[in-house]
Amino acid sequence: MFRKVLFPTDFSEGSHRAVKQFEERNDVPVGEVVLLHVIDEGVLEELTNGYSLLYEKEELELEEIKKKLEEKTMEKLQAKIEDVKKAFKTDKVKPIVRFGFPWEEIVKVAEEEDVSLIILPTHGKLGFSKELLGSTAMRVVKTTLRPVLLLKPSKGDEE
Amino acid sequence: MFRKVLFPTDFSEGSHRAVKQFEERNDVPVGEVVLLHVIDEGVLEELTNGYSLLYEKEELELEEIKKKLEEKTMEKLQAKIEDVKKAFKTDKVKPIVRFGFPWEEIVKVAEEEDVSLIILPTHGKLGFSKELLGSTAMRVVKTTLRPVLLLKPSKGDEE
Repeated sequence: MFRKVLFPTDFSEGSHRAVKQFEERNDVPVGEVVLLHVIDEGVLEELTNGYSLLYEKEELELEEIKKKLEEKTMEKLQAKIEDVKKAFKTDKVKPIVRFGFPWEEIVKVAEEEDVSLIILPTHGKLGFSKELLGSTAMRVVKTTLRPVLLLKPSKGDEE
Repeated sequence: MFRKVLFPTDFSEGSHRAVKQFEERNDVPVGEVVLLHVIDEGVLEELTNGYSLLYEKEELELEEIKKKLEEKTMEKLQAKIEDVKKAFKTDKVKPIVRFGFPWEEIVKVAEEEDVSLIILPTHGKLGFSKELLGSTAMRVVKTTLRPVLLLKPSKGDEE
């Protein structure tokens, strides 16, 4: 079951809590963890629109912005690797940055990396918030054929 | 993670496939499995209504019918215990029969038995079928605070 785990993170508190919850409850080592962050295509668009309005720059800048964002995000993932190693009892962590719709990229990366399990926190941007449909977690659950482990916030810890 | 697992079964093909999928993918022993079947209160009502119409019997019969159903269901669970022991690599299986709404009883039993994981097949009566909302799995996921492992049918195996 724990041969290769995909853990998508949105760097939120909910995501951090999910890692902690996994660490506390799981005493089984994981072969490899794919640590994924998806830069939301929609957010990126808003960002670049705002940027070009503010600075009257051309669309040419988009690739530059994407490259910078990707670099910064990769640094943030790198900074998390030691925590993830400890939490998942593994010495193999592969950080990946993608652009797109989070749920779509999660499902794609799960296939490309042939993971045996997708771990999703059900709070934070990735999780179920107030509504049930439309969330990233929901769409992943609906779309992927791979096992999904849904982690809730700890008791007394809910929003 | 695998200290104590709640596995609700509806005796469907989807449920059977989930056990097989778990067996194939998991090489971690499970401490204990709670094997639950919930007799749907709504179905029971229809059954007893039909029964009393057919045989012009009093409501008094309800308890008798419930008792018989409970006995028969317990026998069906008992017949599954050896398979479940093998699939979950455990020697401790606790069969439980409950009456009520499946999702509600699943969440309740998870609390009462203090399980560390709920395993839900996402096909079969318990799973997501065509619609996303309203299914038992969906409500359990939404309601429980415990980790939930969602198991999909194997590839090429979907409906």
